[in-house]
Amino acid sequence: MNDTICALATAPGGALGIIRISGPQALEILSHVFTKDLSAAEPNTIHYGHIVEYDAASQHQNIIDEVLVSIFRAPHSYTGEDSAEISCHGSRYILNKVIELLIQNGCRMANPGEYTQRAFLNGKMDLSQAEAVADLIASGNKATHQIAMSQLRGHFSSELSRLREQLLKLTSLLELELDFSDHEDLEFADRSELLEIANKINNRITTLTHSFETGLALKNGIPVALVGKTNVGKSTLLNRLLRDDRAIVSSVHGTTRDTIEDTIDVNGVTFRFIDTAGIRQTTDEVEQIGINRTYAAIGKARIILWIVDAEPTAEDIQEILERCKDKSLIIIKNKIDITTNSNISLTPDLRLKNIPTVEISAKQGTNIDKLERAIFESANIPELSEQDIIVTSARQYQSLVSAHDNLARVLSGLESNLSGDLVSEDLRLVLDDLANITGQGRILTNEVLGNIFTHFCVGK
Amino acid sequence: MNDTICALATAPGGALGIIRISGPQALEILSHVFTKDLSAAEPNTIHYGHIVEYDAASQHQNIIDEVLVSIFRAPHSYTGEDSAEISCHGSRYILNKVIELLIQNGCRMANPGEYTQRAFLNGKMDLSQAEAVADLIASGNKATHQIAMSQLRGHFSSELSRLREQLLKLTSLLELELDFSDHEDLEFADRSELLEIANKINNRITTLTHSFETGLALKNGIPVALVGKTNVGKSTLLNRLLRDDRAIVSSVHGTTRDTIEDTIDVNGVTFRFIDTAGIRQTTDEVEQIGINRTYAAIGKARIILWIVDAEPTAEDIQEILERCKDKSLIIIKNKIDITTNSNISLTPDLRLKNIPTVEISAKQGTNIDKLERAIFESANIPELSEQDIIVTSARQYQSLVSAHDNLARVLSGLESNLSGDLVSEDLRLVLDDLANITGQGRILTNEVLGNIFTHFCVGK
Repeated sequence: MNDTICALATAPGGALGIIRISGPQALEILSHVFTKDLSAAEPNTIHYGHIVEYDAASQHQNIIDEVLVSIFRAPHSYTGEDSAEISCHGSRYILNKVIELLIQNGCRMANPGEYTQRAFLNGKMDLSQAEAVADLIASGNKATHQIAMSQLRGHFSSELSRLREQLLKLTSLLELELDFSDHEDLEFADRSELLEIANKINNRITTLTHSFETGLALKNGIPVALVGKTNVGKSTLLNRLLRDDRAIVSSVHGTTRDTIEDTIDVNGVTFRFIDTAGIRQTTDEVEQIGINRTYAAIGKARIILWIVDAEPTAEDIQEILERCKDKSLIIIKNKIDITTNSNISLTPDLRLKNIPTVEISAKQGTNIDKLERAIFESANIPELSEQDIIVTSARQYQSLVSAHDNLARVLSGLESNLSGDLVSEDLRLVLDDLANITGQGRILTNEVLGNIFTHFCVGK
Repeated sequence: MNDTICALATAPGGALGIIRISGPQALEILSHVFTKDLSAAEPNTIHYGHIVEYDAASQHQNIIDEVLVSIFRAPHSYTGEDSAEISCHGSRYILNKVIELLIQNGCRMANPGEYTQRAFLNGKMDLSQAEAVADLIASGNKATHQIAMSQLRGHFSSELSRLREQLLKLTSLLELELDFSDHEDLEFADRSELLEIANKINNRITTLTHSFETGLALKNGIPVALVGKTNVGKSTLLNRLLRDDRAIVSSVHGTTRDTIEDTIDVNGVTFRFIDTAGIRQTTDEVEQIGINRTYAAIGKARIILWIVDAEPTAEDIQEILERCKDKSLIIIKNKIDITTNSNISLTPDLRLKNIPTVEISAKQGTNIDKLERAIFESANIPELSEQDIIVTSARQYQSLVSAHDNLARVLSGLESNLSGDLVSEDLRLVLDDLANITGQGRILTNEVLGNIFTHFCVGK
C-alpha cells in the first residue's frame, strides 16, 4: 500500500482510454510525465495538458498525447488515496506508452481488483460491498444489476450488522444468566427469551442462505432446455425467442455477442438456452441415442420447454414426466397456424393437466409473449425490490452456511439447557462467520484477499 | 448543432465506461437523471452522485449507478459546446440504461465522429486536424502516432497556411503586373520572380504529394512477402520474427490479436507479412503452380525476403530477379547453424552482389536483429521528426494532386507569357484545393462532412 499503482481502466479499442493512478506518489509521478505540476492540484478538478516523454536523442520532449487529467485527493477518492485518471485517445500505442512512462517514473502495474482492494483496506467499503463492485460491472440485466447495487449500497452489510447486534444481545443475556446462575434458579426461566432471539436470527440466516440459489440462477442465467422431436419447430422457436431481445446500444453488442446470442431477458431476468443441437443431429441414428442426449440436456436445465406439433404417445409423456420430476416443465403446442394441429389434446396422461401449456406459432410469432410469461413464472423468481438481499457470492454463501450450522448448535444447546459458557462459544463462531462476510474487524491474509480480488478485472 | 448528443466513448467491457454528452442542453438533460443540479456547475470540475431513474410502479427513484460527472463549458470544451462525461461502472446493462435515460430526456444518439465534427464546425480545429484525431486513435506504433500527432498539432495546417500566403503573394504580384501592363513593357522582367515563387510552391506541394506513399505504407503496414522453397525455414523464421513483438499492456492484446499476429514493428514501423501459405500447400502439386502463387505474393509486397538453405540454381536466381524488379529484395541464408549451409556462395549471378544478404539461423534465433535492421532499411522510410508532415488521408492526397495539376498550368502559363488574369484563375484553383484540405473558409456540404466523419468511431 506504500507504492503507487497504475492500470488501464477501460476496455481497449474505444475512442477514449482511461488510465488510473492511485497511491501516495500518484500526483508526483504524474507531474513527471505531464506538462503541468499537479502535485498541489485541487481535488475534483480537471486539467488539460500533454503527456510527454523526454527523448534523449533529439534532446526535447515528445508529445505522447493531449489528455485530460482528473485529480482526486485522499481520503475522498475511490481508493481513499491520492489518485488521478488520465483520459487519453484510445490508441493502443498511446495507452501502452503512457503506462510505460508511469512505470518508468515509479508506478507499479496494478493487480486485478487492486483499486477496490485498497478501497476496502482504507475502510471505504467492506468486503461484501467490494464483491458487489465486481458483480455490478458484470451485471447484464436488471435483476443482477439490482442485486449488486443493493449490496454495493450496503443493504447486506446493514442486515449483517443488525444480526450482529442481536447476537451480541444474546451473548450479553447469556453472560447475565451466568452471573446469576450461582445465586438463583433463574436460568430456565430466561432461556425462552434467548431461544426466541436465536430463532429469529436463525430464520433470517436461513432466508439469506436460501437466497443463494436464486442469486446463482440470476447471475449465471436460468438454464432452459428446449426439447422435442425433429421438425416440431425447435430452431424456429429459438430464433423467435432470441430475435426480440436486442440491446439498445448497438456498439455494446459486438463483444457480448457470444454470450447474449443464446440467452433472452424476460422481465430483467436472463434465461440461458442449453444447446440441444445434438438432438437434431441424431435424427438419422438409432432412436435411443437421440433420446439419451435429450435427457442429458434436461438434466442440466431448470426449465424444460417440451415442444410438440402432434399428439404425443402415452409412452412419450410417461418418459418426459419421469425425467422432468425435479424440473419446471412447460408444454408448447406449436404450429397452431396449421389447423390440423390446433386440437392436440394431450389427454393420454391426466397429470399433464397441472402443467402449463402454451399454444404458439413459432413461425408466425403467435403467443410468444405468453410463452415468455410462462417461462418467467416457471423460474419462480421472487419479485425483487431495491432493498432485497440476494447472496450471489460463493464465499459469502459458505460463511452463511457455517453461521447456520453453528447457530444450530446454539439452538440445540439452549434447548438442552447446555451451560451458558459453552453456548457462548458457539455464538462467538456465528459472530465470526458473519464478520468474515464483510471482513470488518478481521485481519485478512493475502491469500483470502487474493481469492476475492483476482476475479476482478485489472483497472478496478 | 442545436440538439444535444450522447454516446459511449469507451469500448464496452472494461471496469469503467465513459458516456459523453455535448450540446446546448447537455447540463440540463444531465441534471434530470443525476442526483444534483449541474446546470450551473463550474467548468472543469468533477461531481460524485447517482444516475437515477424514476420508477412509476414503486413511485421512487432507482439508482442506476454511482458515477463521477466531469463538467466542461462552452467554448472551452472539446466540441466547443457545453459538455459532460459520465464515468460509469462498465456494465453493459448500466451503460445501456444511462444512454436510454439520456435519450428519454432529450439527447440524441451521436453519429460516428460527431463530437469531432462539432469541434470542427465550432472552429476548435480544422479538417486536417479532425482527420488526425481518427488517425491518432487508430495509431498502433510510433511512426503512425508521430504523423497523426504532428498533424493534430497543426503542423500540416501551418504549412498549408504558409503555402497559401505565398500563393496570395503570387496573385498580388500578378495583379500588380496587370495594373502596369498598359503603361510599360514591364511584364517579362517581373515573371522571373513570379516563376521562382511558383517553383518553390510547386516543390513543396510535390514533396507533400509524394509523402502519401510513405504515409499509406506506414498506416497500413509495409507489405513483406517471405518466399522460398519448402523446408527452407519460412515458418520458423516467421514465428521467430513475430515472437519478440509483444505489446507491454497484456490487457490491450486480446482485441488486436488478429491484426498484430502477422505484423512486426521495427523502429516504430509496422511490417505486415503477406500470407504465403499457398506456397507451402503446393509442395505436392506441379512445380509451376507453386511458383505462380509465390509470384502473386511478390506482386503485393514491397519487400521480398527470399530465404534459401542451399545454393540456388541460376534459373531460380534469374526468375526471382526478374519478378522482383520493382521490389526491395533481401536474400536470407538460413540454417547457418548447420555447417554445410554456411558456405552458400550465391555466385551464379553477379547482380546478386548488390542485394543485401543476411545469414541467419531461424531455429536458434541467430542474427534476427540484423535481419530486422535490413528489413527496416529496405523499407526506405525517411527518419521522421515531430515536425515532419506525412500525408495519410486519401482525401488530402487528392486535393494535393489537384493543386499540383493546377499549379503545373500556372507554371506553364507563366513560362509561356500567358496573360496574367488567366494565370490568376489557375492560381485561385490552387488556393481552393489547399483550402479543401483544412476546410477553413469553405462551406462544406453534409456529404463532404459525412465522407470524412463516418470513418470515425461513435463517441469521438
